[in-house]
Amino acid sequence: MNRYAVIMAGGRGERFWPESRTAKPKQFLTLVGDRSLIQQSYDRILPLIPAENIFIVLGKQHLALAKEQLPEIPPENFLVEPVGRNTAPCIGLAAIHIRRRDPEGVMLVFPSDHMIMGATDYHQCLEKAFHWAVKENCLVTIGIKPSRPETGYGYIEREGDGLDTGPSVFPVRRFVEKPDPERAWEFVQAGCFYWNSGIFIWKAHVILERIKEHIPELAAGLDRIDPSIGSSQYDEVLGQVFPNMPSISVDFGIMEKSPEILMVQGDFGWDDLGSWGALDRIALRDERGMKIQGDFVGYDNDDCLIYGQEGLIAALGVQNLIIVRSGEVVMVCDKERSQEVRELVRLCKEKHLEQYL
Amino acid sequence: MNRYAVIMAGGRGERFWPESRTAKPKQFLTLVGDRSLIQQSYDRILPLIPAENIFIVLGKQHLALAKEQLPEIPPENFLVEPVGRNTAPCIGLAAIHIRRRDPEGVMLVFPSDHMIMGATDYHQCLEKAFHWAVKENCLVTIGIKPSRPETGYGYIEREGDGLDTGPSVFPVRRFVEKPDPERAWEFVQAGCFYWNSGIFIWKAHVILERIKEHIPELAAGLDRIDPSIGSSQYDEVLGQVFPNMPSISVDFGIMEKSPEILMVQGDFGWDDLGSWGALDRIALRDERGMKIQGDFVGYDNDDCLIYGQEGLIAALGVQNLIIVRSGEVVMVCDKERSQEVRELVRLCKEKHLEQYL
Repeated sequence: MNRYAVIMAGGRGERFWPESRTAKPKQFLTLVGDRSLIQQSYDRILPLIPAENIFIVLGKQHLALAKEQLPEIPPENFLVEPVGRNTAPCIGLAAIHIRRRDPEGVMLVFPSDHMIMGATDYHQCLEKAFHWAVKENCLVTIGIKPSRPETGYGYIEREGDGLDTGPSVFPVRRFVEKPDPERAWEFVQAGCFYWNSGIFIWKAHVILERIKEHIPELAAGLDRIDPSIGSSQYDEVLGQVFPNMPSISVDFGIMEKSPEILMVQGDFGWDDLGSWGALDRIALRDERGMKIQGDFVGYDNDDCLIYGQEGLIAALGVQNLIIVRSGEVVMVCDKERSQEVRELVRLCKEKHLEQYL
Repeated sequence: MNRYAVIMAGGRGERFWPESRTAKPKQFLTLVGDRSLIQQSYDRILPLIPAENIFIVLGKQHLALAKEQLPEIPPENFLVEPVGRNTAPCIGLAAIHIRRRDPEGVMLVFPSDHMIMGATDYHQCLEKAFHWAVKENCLVTIGIKPSRPETGYGYIEREGDGLDTGPSVFPVRRFVEKPDPERAWEFVQAGCFYWNSGIFIWKAHVILERIKEHIPELAAGLDRIDPSIGSSQYDEVLGQVFPNMPSISVDFGIMEKSPEILMVQGDFGWDDLGSWGALDRIALRDERGMKIQGDFVGYDNDDCLIYGQEGLIAALGVQNLIIVRSGEVVMVCDKERSQEVRELVRLCKEKHLEQYL
């Protein structure tokens, strides 16, 4: 029984525009440290899973970039989605590939563009998750102890007492979608709620059985693709079947509907890096709260995130702004509204300014 | 007795950084309309003075650019200052050239980078100024009726009653340097104070006599250069003498010390375009006070000046900012502090970031 990793790299990272672009979305950017987020994801998992067992699921337009950034991964492990169809089809596709290689294979699935600090704790947590996923033949997820009443994440409520310690393991009572601020506050107070990290561990055949149970159209599509794996018909069949699959998340389609899910408590630093505001949260600040990356001049500025990989940013007498320069695009945004950057992307489309996306 | 124009184009325009750069300062930029400020200055004066009588005084590093922008002006009319030495040496140099061409020549001197609206009123005003400069053999200046208590300009106080009407002509009582806000307010209330536009009219030999009287070292230098005009020694003599001339403004060195100066009241729209704040003042605004030049997307923004000749600027939820993108430089500045942009230029030098200047 082998272990596999599935790195989901189909995201568009629109809230990191203009640094994140259609041609090079967030997961391929070096936002923190000196490797891209997907490279860091790869580096981080390598001590547990060998490169030949690591799969990348992504869009065709990013295949060349991904192969360039991750040359150690065998070419056949890059699974191309003909179109983006949310996480359930993505995971289902990876699962049929893994089941082909090892009918009892156990897979770790996670997004390519999250930030994790504390690799040792992360590895311990995953070891525990693998252990329980195999032992119980069940779905396992990682829950992060919340450190603030975040409204941008989904939550997991645990049930009863821990089944194991160091890291703790709990049965899941329920998954909760992104709460309003009041509920988020209650969740943090209650102590039995965790952030849904989007990291999952299960045997390939177990998740495929759950898909069959809860999303039968998706299971039917996967059953059509499965026999073509490794054959010359694969691309054609995939291209016919995949676009017609239901676009649904694994959280909504499977997790919220399945009983007997286990949650391992993740005690490593984690951030989904969902927006510039998230980068602002983790970046190093000076005594006036300025977080600066790139060439900068200025004075009398407070609490701004300044981000430019090239060129110069100058600021004078401004507060609470996110200022980003990326190529030919400049973005200046109230720091409290970084979640809305996606809306600027929408406006660009509306104004036929796609060349800036 | 011929008329000549001297367009002073030696300014650095630092307060318009980053659009204004060392290699292409403000006067060569198309900030308003579709011709550069110096081209607009040229166009505006052409109905009164033929191209062959228009001189441009400028630094060597901008000679090629100026010739390219003003191809109608004869090459010998571009007077190169070996180094910048403020307005008195600049005007003195032009005056000896003009006196050589016409001992009784009358010259109009003005900065290349100001904004003037209302060409007809401007022309009437200048006609009146030429008339009095010739008739009285005196120094004539143009005063602008102030429309706000501006602290960024020098003022002219008029004396007694008008000598002429349509436009009015007054004797000057005194020149006053940039006032503090309280005095500026008093000036505007008083009704007898005008903005010093930096536009002057006089016979070449008259200003040279005043220079001899008030700045004798400058006069001595000009006397050394004068005989070489038109000869092969000119450049060499200029290069030796000019850098040793006193760096002094015509306002401080001559105007504030001379009796019997006349002021013609300028009733045309005038702005020295001294900073981004000035451009903000004159730019067209939408219903939320946004003034936008270039590709832009954004919402919930108020009272910002957005300026980018290329690329895209995006803004979300910001107020009272000047946002400029020029080439590889982005500047974001509190609108009230646009006068301080020069300080950012100084910081660039201090940090050895001259490539952005």
